[in-house]
Formats: sequence, structure tokens, C-alpha cells
Amino acid sequence: EAVPRSAIELRCQCVSTHSKFIHPKFIQNVNLTPSGPHCKNVEVIATLRDGREVCLEPTAPWVKLIIKAILDK
Amino acid sequence: EAVPRSAIELRCQCVSTHSKFIHPKFIQNVNLTPSGPHCKNVEVIATLRDGREVCLEPTAPWVKLIIKAILDK
Repeated sequence: EAVPRSAIELRCQCVSTHSKFIHPKFIQNVNLTPSGPHCKNVEVIATLRDGREVCLEPTAPWVKLIIKAILDK
Repeated sequence: EAVPRSAIELRCQCVSTHSKFIHPKFIQNVNLTPSGPHCKNVEVIATLRDGREVCLEPTAPWVKLIIKAILDK
């Protein structure tokens, strides 16, 4: 079993965040990494259905809504 | 760059969910996978600081709170 990438990364993975709304139907999964010694930022990385990974802004209302929608579905 | 595990898994990854509260300080990251053709369940997989992966119940109030805490921090 592969070690999750975040377990071996020791620094921030996002240099910028995607600002435009992404419809949940294009999202394959969302990874949330709390801030910690490796990175002072909370990082939210969405993997899209086409395989692309995009960093999302944890404080953006639409990002919180998408996460809530995934959990409530 | 490695393909995220969830992108290559074509079935549910959780057979059961951890029922006891896990303190956020033990959580390294949380992966949310919406339901879809590969799996009818929403799956929430936490990777703990010791490397273990545990499946969490998406509808459990404490799970929602932990996710909220990560985003709000």
C-alpha cells in the first residue's frame, strides 16, 4: 500500500488557490490537511474527475459548502 | 507524481467506520470522497499521525466538527 503523499511531504503543497467555483460533480475527492510544523496553512486539495489536483481556499464560503454537500449527501 | 490512491480504486474503500472520537491533534489529514459509480457511500478517511488510516462515519456529529475545526483553524 502506497504511503499517502501528504505523509511524505514536509512542506506546503499549495502555492496558490483556485478562486473560481468548481461544481461538485467535477470533484473526485477532497483532501484536508490541518496546519502543522510542515506548513502553517490549512490546505484543501481537490482531485478533479479528470485527474487534475487543485488547491482550494479553506476560508472561501463555496469551498465550505462543497465540503458540507459531500458530507450531507 | 503519484496518482492518488482514490483515483485508481474503483470500489468502496471502507468496510466499517471507527466509532470513537479521535482528537484532531492525532489527525494528519482527512480525505473526503463523494459517493459515485465506484461506491454508493460517502467515504471519509483520516490518516493519523502514526500513519494509520481510519474510516470515519460522515454523518457523525464529531466527524463534521473535526472537519469544521480543520477548515476554521
